[in-house]
Amino acid sequence: MIKAMFSVLLVLVAVSSTFGKYIPKSGKRIPQTLSRGWGDQLIWAQTYEEGLYWSRNKPLMVLFHLEDCPHSQALKKVFAEDDEIQKILDEDFIVLNLVYETVDKNLSPDGKYVPRFLFVDPTMTVRADITSRYSNRMYTYEPGDLQLCKYKC
Amino acid sequence: MIKAMFSVLLVLVAVSSTFGKYIPKSGKRIPQTLSRGWGDQLIWAQTYEEGLYWSRNKPLMVLFHLEDCPHSQALKKVFAEDDEIQKILDEDFIVLNLVYETVDKNLSPDGKYVPRFLFVDPTMTVRADITSRYSNRMYTYEPGDLQLCKYKC
Repeated sequence: MIKAMFSVLLVLVAVSSTFGKYIPKSGKRIPQTLSRGWGDQLIWAQTYEEGLYWSRNKPLMVLFHLEDCPHSQALKKVFAEDDEIQKILDEDFIVLNLVYETVDKNLSPDGKYVPRFLFVDPTMTVRADITSRYSNRMYTYEPGDLQLCKYKC
Repeated sequence: MIKAMFSVLLVLVAVSSTFGKYIPKSGKRIPQTLSRGWGDQLIWAQTYEEGLYWSRNKPLMVLFHLEDCPHSQALKKVFAEDDEIQKILDEDFIVLNLVYETVDKNLSPDGKYVPRFLFVDPTMTVRADITSRYSNRMYTYEPGDLQLCKYKC
């Protein structure tokens, strides 16, 4: 079945006469970005394997989120709009954002939830010691935490 | 070290006063797309895990390529510009393009090379039986193959 579809696909590629104008029935889409809104100027790794490959010289920040999660969205807005955080991430980190879990259980030391940040150092060790202020979800952050930090500092 | 950087990062988020204007020293970048040029109107899975999740109802096409590989680039041009292939992929397949290998050895039945197409059916079986015309690289295609197919059909 798939084989047949692929043959059809190859044939159609050959006989088609219109180019570069495909528009889905549901209407034209905005191309998906690798940033998924967390910083269009950053160079994002696409997959965990790619992130690990590039993290030989810089630590890797892995960010788990969901596009329909209000907590992820609120945090994303702060991150994406802040120039300083974008600059540090751009210059000193390899960055990866994921909406699906990986097979590496080290990336979910206390469960699979979003938003969740894990760091992997250049020795490819997941740094479970880098935690937030939440004892029940040790790798999550909220936009309000940043304000709290401001007053504490 | 990383821990200290992350603290700095959080502090800077709080004290920063400029928003959404970050431009890298090397100049403004064009946001990376998940399509990587293989069809901006398609809905691409980001990772193999995501592709497998979505392939419960449709077969998954996994495309390995490299952005600095001329063979990949030539094939990409044909694929991306052809409306029929884009339509079939959009409507009947889950699509994933990768520039890094996964940990699943089933996706490299005869080695790791690019460009390379593997199909995974909804039972999560990699269909090693869907091959091209090359006996030494059984999962690669060239733009010329499409012309050959046209005359044969």
